[in-house]
Amino acid sequence: MDLFPVFKELAQKTPSKILLIVLDGVGGLPLEPGGPTELEAAKTPNLDRLAEESALGLLTPVYPGLAPGSGPGHLALFGYDPFRYVVGRGALSALGLGADFREGDVALRGNFATLAEGKVVDRRAGRPSTEENQRVIAKLKEAIPRIEDVEVHFYTESEHRFLVILRGEGLEDRVTDTDPQKTGLPPLKAQALDEASEKTARIVNLLSERIQEVLEDEPRMNGALFRGASKRPSFPRMGEVYGLTPAAIASYPMYKGLASLVGMEVLPVEGEGDALEGKLKALRENWGRYDFFYFHVKKTDAMGEDGNFWGKVEKIERFDALLPEILSLGPDVLAITGDHSTPALLKAHSWHPVPLLLKAPYLRADEARRFTEREAQRGSLGHLRGVELMPLLLAHAGKLLKYGA
Amino acid sequence: MDLFPVFKELAQKTPSKILLIVLDGVGGLPLEPGGPTELEAAKTPNLDRLAEESALGLLTPVYPGLAPGSGPGHLALFGYDPFRYVVGRGALSALGLGADFREGDVALRGNFATLAEGKVVDRRAGRPSTEENQRVIAKLKEAIPRIEDVEVHFYTESEHRFLVILRGEGLEDRVTDTDPQKTGLPPLKAQALDEASEKTARIVNLLSERIQEVLEDEPRMNGALFRGASKRPSFPRMGEVYGLTPAAIASYPMYKGLASLVGMEVLPVEGEGDALEGKLKALRENWGRYDFFYFHVKKTDAMGEDGNFWGKVEKIERFDALLPEILSLGPDVLAITGDHSTPALLKAHSWHPVPLLLKAPYLRADEARRFTEREAQRGSLGHLRGVELMPLLLAHAGKLLKYGA
Repeated sequence: MDLFPVFKELAQKTPSKILLIVLDGVGGLPLEPGGPTELEAAKTPNLDRLAEESALGLLTPVYPGLAPGSGPGHLALFGYDPFRYVVGRGALSALGLGADFREGDVALRGNFATLAEGKVVDRRAGRPSTEENQRVIAKLKEAIPRIEDVEVHFYTESEHRFLVILRGEGLEDRVTDTDPQKTGLPPLKAQALDEASEKTARIVNLLSERIQEVLEDEPRMNGALFRGASKRPSFPRMGEVYGLTPAAIASYPMYKGLASLVGMEVLPVEGEGDALEGKLKALRENWGRYDFFYFHVKKTDAMGEDGNFWGKVEKIERFDALLPEILSLGPDVLAITGDHSTPALLKAHSWHPVPLLLKAPYLRADEARRFTEREAQRGSLGHLRGVELMPLLLAHAGKLLKYGA
Repeated sequence: MDLFPVFKELAQKTPSKILLIVLDGVGGLPLEPGGPTELEAAKTPNLDRLAEESALGLLTPVYPGLAPGSGPGHLALFGYDPFRYVVGRGALSALGLGADFREGDVALRGNFATLAEGKVVDRRAGRPSTEENQRVIAKLKEAIPRIEDVEVHFYTESEHRFLVILRGEGLEDRVTDTDPQKTGLPPLKAQALDEASEKTARIVNLLSERIQEVLEDEPRMNGALFRGASKRPSFPRMGEVYGLTPAAIASYPMYKGLASLVGMEVLPVEGEGDALEGKLKALRENWGRYDFFYFHVKKTDAMGEDGNFWGKVEKIERFDALLPEILSLGPDVLAITGDHSTPALLKAHSWHPVPLLLKAPYLRADEARRFTEREAQRGSLGHLRGVELMPLLLAHAGKLLKYGA
């Protein structure tokens, strides 16, 4: 059930400020049964002190058993039902690369492939280096600026992966993939699944042919397979739904892109990589201008993906060190949580719930003493779904009226 | 929201094996406040040891406050939303009796009733014995093999209850009941609720007349009232939805029928009654052939229905004694739970949550020490709905890909 109409009716503008801190992939697992998780192993005196005066709970970001990608995990935290507000693969890729991706564009994920006698012999073209990919993309950019009246924009992703953005009149995204998913078959023809998408299908098929012509002398990267055609989704804005003036503080394109999809103002952040100091500066300098801040910390997830347990522990501790300065801004409502778990043990996103910490007025007594998975089980917030977080934050911030008389 | 399309896309075939053990109606209540429940009273050294190394949680099979029948309770455990995947009363009855119930057939529950001057004077015909019922059913079988071109199959259920299965071309099940629900009124005429069901309505009305003619000399069982006309439902198969090759090990027709509705292979089980040894044998002998096993234990529920607290305790202990042999098969993921509670105190299914035990890789630390209702509250799985169990089992078995990028 879509509750946005309900929130829209009940939301009211107030001066109170909400700060939502997302420690990407923060939930973890013990390396061996009985051992500590990353959060339990970390020394976090500031988080511990905060947990004492906060309420905790566990959050299942999307659904029990589902390991969410960044898209669904974040959309859920922003209150957008991730089964209803779906971002296509091409669009996600465009957001992740920070590509110039406009309303009306169609984005497609591409794979360089090796073709022989018209058939796919390697769907990943022998996994070229990203540098090789860049070299070939430069060639394509030069050779294929457009097909008919449609602009074609190429972007290197990594290894065999690239992105194409089509820009022009009358493009829709209901077209089938050209990737046959196995070798020994020719690339498929893109087919329109509705009339409005016929032009896109034609352009994709012409593009595939042109790429083969341009790359015919390449030994391995001599063909392309396309998947996940998608337009930039048009979601309701947080301003409309919640009456908020929201800002995003993130440094990686994917998160900035997701935030812009839900209508957040993406603030510039100084510095390279996760740039925590730059993020803190952006938060401080913009504190007066917005009433909702999404603050993203990436490296916890990156370390988890690398299987680096102690690296993840260190990233948690680094965040802990920043916490006093964040708290000194005096958010009325502060939530700290993750968009999913990324246990170093699994080197991947997982389905396990994440701890949620809520510092706000009007909390009930709470037995949880640390921001850890185990303590969060004992918290007074109980066990929530990701999409249930936003209304809770709005309520604690005094921004939601009574529902019904 | 129907998540089957999501699971379908994310499910992947792996060699890992999932074993789901359903202790029917296992949840209980203390006979008096402060006393133990059936599970707490039982001596279960093997379950206790397993609980130490497992994660526990509480499962609300269908919805808070709803005491589910076997149908919704089991469908939920198999991941089928019990409000979406509904089995009509006639169909459930056919499954429960293990009747020959085919696609296209329409099943109806019948009551023998006493009629006088065309009006119902006893809706249950004085609750005849099941033997009396069998005698009269034999008479009807003989006298009414068909109505028009439609085969009529009669089955004794118990006391005043029987089942009719109609088999023929062009039968649909949208027809109203003939049971007026109170005495002093004539039986109602079955009415078609859509055009396609008109033939069924006509056949049911002709059948009611024929039954009265055949039984006119019977002193009490001289009429029949029909309810719950339903076809065999056509549900998606677990193989399609989850990519599993599932098998069911159960000995009572209802559970075999439900398992076959969701596309499980129903394995033959040697022995009478609950036949736990035969079930174990079937499990052992088929272990290599399937990747999902549903293993049903019935007597816990039967004792609860009888109000036999200590009988139920004993059935739990009997299961406990089998556990080591089950564990020796080495399931990758093992879940033990119930389809609902059947507290001996209530002599009936109840709405209380059931404990859930999960032994699997990648569990979080857990404070719960026994497979009991009280300990399960402290478990790390938290409080789940029945339908949420399957994705969790698939995830722990490594059978679900990430949702979204």
